[in-house]
Amino acid sequence: MSQGFTLWFTGLSGAGKTTLTNELVPQLKARGVKIEVLDGDEVRTNLSKGLGFSKEDRDTNIRRIGYVARLLSRNGVGVIVAAISPYKEIRDEVRKDVEANGATFVEVFVQASLDTLVSRDVKGLYKKAIAGEIANFTGVSDPYEAPESPEILVSSDTETVAESAAKILDHLEENGLIQPAYFLAQQETEARFASAGEAQ
Amino acid sequence: MSQGFTLWFTGLSGAGKTTLTNELVPQLKARGVKIEVLDGDEVRTNLSKGLGFSKEDRDTNIRRIGYVARLLSRNGVGVIVAAISPYKEIRDEVRKDVEANGATFVEVFVQASLDTLVSRDVKGLYKKAIAGEIANFTGVSDPYEAPESPEILVSSDTETVAESAAKILDHLEENGLIQPAYFLAQQETEARFASAGEAQ
Repeated sequence: MSQGFTLWFTGLSGAGKTTLTNELVPQLKARGVKIEVLDGDEVRTNLSKGLGFSKEDRDTNIRRIGYVARLLSRNGVGVIVAAISPYKEIRDEVRKDVEANGATFVEVFVQASLDTLVSRDVKGLYKKAIAGEIANFTGVSDPYEAPESPEILVSSDTETVAESAAKILDHLEENGLIQPAYFLAQQETEARFASAGEAQ
Repeated sequence: MSQGFTLWFTGLSGAGKTTLTNELVPQLKARGVKIEVLDGDEVRTNLSKGLGFSKEDRDTNIRRIGYVARLLSRNGVGVIVAAISPYKEIRDEVRKDVEANGATFVEVFVQASLDTLVSRDVKGLYKKAIAGEIANFTGVSDPYEAPESPEILVSSDTETVAESAAKILDHLEENGLIQPAYFLAQQETEARFASAGEAQ
């Protein structure tokens, strides 16, 4: 049985959490890991409808994601959480919960400078936030507390998404949370030989 | 890998959902099943703080439990949900979601007559509800829609908790959701012989 873990992506809107998730999921599945993604928006629909963006509501939302992540990862599932999760205290609280349940918590700071984000501004949200049209917009009109010692730091300012994904896979492999790629290839080869033997 | 399932207990307060859960959990674990219990009260604390007991709030609460149950059971976990879940439509909606995710939904109607419940009234709640002191109390001042064709019907009026648990284990075994007890005993014996062989 593979050991469960929670890969917790934190970072500003547009920093690349979702892009990185989409890059990682097929690679993790290819390593034989059961994967669930708890995406900030999806979770708001399923678990937190009615909650807003005050500190209290954000904390409640993150605690709910943490509750589900811990249930899954203590059952051997690899969970990717991709939510802004701006407050350090709550991220640390979730870490403690996950670890107390025998699973591993890996904090990934998905970093990008505000300049980069404003210049990208894929959804046009930063422009609106800077113009004062969106209240409680993290990084502009609401605080973001960067992790002080995340297990992994990736930067969409300076790295390609493939490079960031490779960093994460390396970390998981070095910590025994996923099988090395060559190990799986070897198992497949052995299984092929075994079934060829049976066919004779 | 064992196939995931959701064992959904529905029934009035005091009908025996929690007692039956406590009876079943160790027996399911002994069969090698990964088990998570989503208890109505616990889930209200972790996922649904602030929700009340109107139909809308109850439906939201049950949908959230359903969301978590489906995430777990599609990853091979056996989930026991023990919540009153009074409305048929929402239970059926959750069933569809779980089944659409490749897991099995087993509805267990934990039945007890209102007379029995009022005479037991362990927490003194029925007395208060009948006196009009609790609004929206299922079965007294709020509706309960019994399942029309649950997979399993157990009755704490006429069965011991051991008998009810045995019914459920039989159903799960017959449907290939848990291993037969003798199969596990056999595996253990084989493992013992194998390790004895290695020791020589």
